[in-house]
Amino acid sequence: MSPAALKKKALDYHRLPKPGKLSVESSKPCSTPDDLSLSYTPGVAQPVLEIAKNPEKAYDYTNKGNLVAVITDGTAILGLGNRGPLAAKPVMEGKAVLFKQFAGIDVFDIEVNAKTPQDFIKVVEAIAPTFGGINLEDIAAPHCFEIEAALKKKLDIPVFHDDQHGTATIICAGLINALHVQGKTLETAKIVCLGAGAAGIASMKLLVAMGARKANILLVDSKGVVHKDRTNLNSFKKGFARKTALRTLADAMNGADVFVGVSGGNLVSSAMVKSMADRPVVFALANPTPEILPEKACAARSDLIMATGRSDFPNQVNNVLGFPFIFRGALDARAKEITQDMLIAAVYALAELAREPVPASVLKAYKLKKLKFGPDYILPKPFDPRLAERVPQAVAKAAKKGMAAAKRRQV
Amino acid sequence: MSPAALKKKALDYHRLPKPGKLSVESSKPCSTPDDLSLSYTPGVAQPVLEIAKNPEKAYDYTNKGNLVAVITDGTAILGLGNRGPLAAKPVMEGKAVLFKQFAGIDVFDIEVNAKTPQDFIKVVEAIAPTFGGINLEDIAAPHCFEIEAALKKKLDIPVFHDDQHGTATIICAGLINALHVQGKTLETAKIVCLGAGAAGIASMKLLVAMGARKANILLVDSKGVVHKDRTNLNSFKKGFARKTALRTLADAMNGADVFVGVSGGNLVSSAMVKSMADRPVVFALANPTPEILPEKACAARSDLIMATGRSDFPNQVNNVLGFPFIFRGALDARAKEITQDMLIAAVYALAELAREPVPASVLKAYKLKKLKFGPDYILPKPFDPRLAERVPQAVAKAAKKGMAAAKRRQV
Repeated sequence: MSPAALKKKALDYHRLPKPGKLSVESSKPCSTPDDLSLSYTPGVAQPVLEIAKNPEKAYDYTNKGNLVAVITDGTAILGLGNRGPLAAKPVMEGKAVLFKQFAGIDVFDIEVNAKTPQDFIKVVEAIAPTFGGINLEDIAAPHCFEIEAALKKKLDIPVFHDDQHGTATIICAGLINALHVQGKTLETAKIVCLGAGAAGIASMKLLVAMGARKANILLVDSKGVVHKDRTNLNSFKKGFARKTALRTLADAMNGADVFVGVSGGNLVSSAMVKSMADRPVVFALANPTPEILPEKACAARSDLIMATGRSDFPNQVNNVLGFPFIFRGALDARAKEITQDMLIAAVYALAELAREPVPASVLKAYKLKKLKFGPDYILPKPFDPRLAERVPQAVAKAAKKGMAAAKRRQV
Repeated sequence: MSPAALKKKALDYHRLPKPGKLSVESSKPCSTPDDLSLSYTPGVAQPVLEIAKNPEKAYDYTNKGNLVAVITDGTAILGLGNRGPLAAKPVMEGKAVLFKQFAGIDVFDIEVNAKTPQDFIKVVEAIAPTFGGINLEDIAAPHCFEIEAALKKKLDIPVFHDDQHGTATIICAGLINALHVQGKTLETAKIVCLGAGAAGIASMKLLVAMGARKANILLVDSKGVVHKDRTNLNSFKKGFARKTALRTLADAMNGADVFVGVSGGNLVSSAMVKSMADRPVVFALANPTPEILPEKACAARSDLIMATGRSDFPNQVNNVLGFPFIFRGALDARAKEITQDMLIAAVYALAELAREPVPASVLKAYKLKKLKFGPDYILPKPFDPRLAERVPQAVAKAAKKGMAAAKRRQV
């Protein structure tokens, strides 16, 4: 299909037969006067009084426990930059569609007109009683870090910045499997991360928590390698600043085992890929144009494992593998936060699932004849029905373990 | 059914099989990888770019134009007082059910934890890009007036405080018909309004806009008649302060044609009703216990027309006759506000509809043998399918007329 035809198809999908992608429905009978006397006055007074007595009852009598807010200020929409809150609405509605489709979670998309991170934090804090969880979305770094940290502290419901932790979870799951296929380990791998925004920082943090060595990671931003002698580094980058003489991306790539790109299109050359260590792993995740296209990278060398953010190449690093199931697990466990342990549980559940035989329904959904763990299949496919069982269960288990430990500490 | 059994039934309705009353669904296909490439990346980038270029396109590519926020701070939940935002959630979800059932409007219920009216205003202003309209709900007077006025000024979408204007609309429609049946007119009727909160003030204002004389209205609050010599009246009450020697509710009722009660249970005695003018109208709207019960009022005199807020007596003054259809009309016309003219259009549409023969489907829904315009039928029934045609159409027509006039003034 031509780009113009694709554009028309996408716009028609959003516009016809009715604008938008979401519909709010009653989940209870409401078609007779008797129904309404339960749904609204006088019957509704009963749950009001119960919740006023005991706030926890909101989880019994309202949708709070299955309701997530997907909230943005529109400052970093997809790869399109700051386009304001209103323009973010189609993306947030799309996210709501995914939450429902994959994990049965109800979502209100909320687009916030906020001038400062402090304003944004106040708004989310104020509307939080409505929700069982908060999914922050498409908020530019470094404000996203400040916003998430403040809200995690203020609220007693899970707060999750998907562009950080969702992306990090999928990257880690894919990397573990790619390294396994290549016969390498996270503990010894030399890792280059191009892009020091939300996704880059969170991914490197999670890799470190899972065993990667900080001394083996080189963070590279638009000014080159993040090193100790650089001034004006924000505190998030500073955490990864290395004492090193390496300065350029090409310097960093030389001899690296792993490249993770969460930056921009075409920033990696064939020569850079050639300079990497034996059996390297290249995650070129910039959308829609990767840091290096798979055909180019594979032409440069044949011993690499490659992943992108796109569905038209093998090994798509796609956040939909994470957020619906992480939240499902968190909500099911009535977790008060999403912890690193819960993310790591999701990472392992995803990585393990990819190593198992693929059900016929998955092959059919993707019009594939076969799919087997290996260089071209390191992550499960989104329409794999096993995801909805395994990942939430693993996440909920980690949540409960964490809550039990916290309770023990309190006693 | 016993009160305990009714309570259990209401709580079970809210809790089973799943907690709450709302579900958010995808309104577009989303069950294949191809669907998702339109609903989310890469297809979703197209409407983002269109809306970034022209904000009006949000009405074409997102649900904004059919999405209303039902927002509360929980300071005046039903007749239960200030119970906080969380306890208000069942009521707000119920309101969402009604919006959908009667007018096909999608609603997100939003419960706001706000310490001051200014905080509340800031929050609603910030999240407004999400919505095509704002329905303020269960916010205590006098803050509700300040909040509504500020938001009407700041936002370019309809802002509507249902407890004021929804209630006022239904009261006016009912009163017009009741006075007609009694052979009286709004212009000469002596009116007593007991209760000077959101509903009372707004109803009296709308009655005046429709022809009632301020000099014929006596507002009565918990301290008695609102008169010129009283000090510390808020500005809303001050607007109705009369130069009069009357002091008590009993004083005010003596010789009155109309009583409107939006206050509390059992505040009106048989003697007060007896002291009213010939062929009086008594709207005892306090919930669940009216200012005077119909059996008591009708025992006091037989020439009265009586309405309550309850569904188990004739002539229920029920807001569901208003807000779904007023918003439907406003959204259909893409109105930027809900004006007094639009409310008056709704009043007349409702009043006229009650004077027409009743369809069989309505009789069936309410298990009635007959229903004919007169003392026991002065307002349409909520499940009358004609409401969804007549009222929105009348409201939209008034909205377009107003917008055209405003445009002419600009030229």
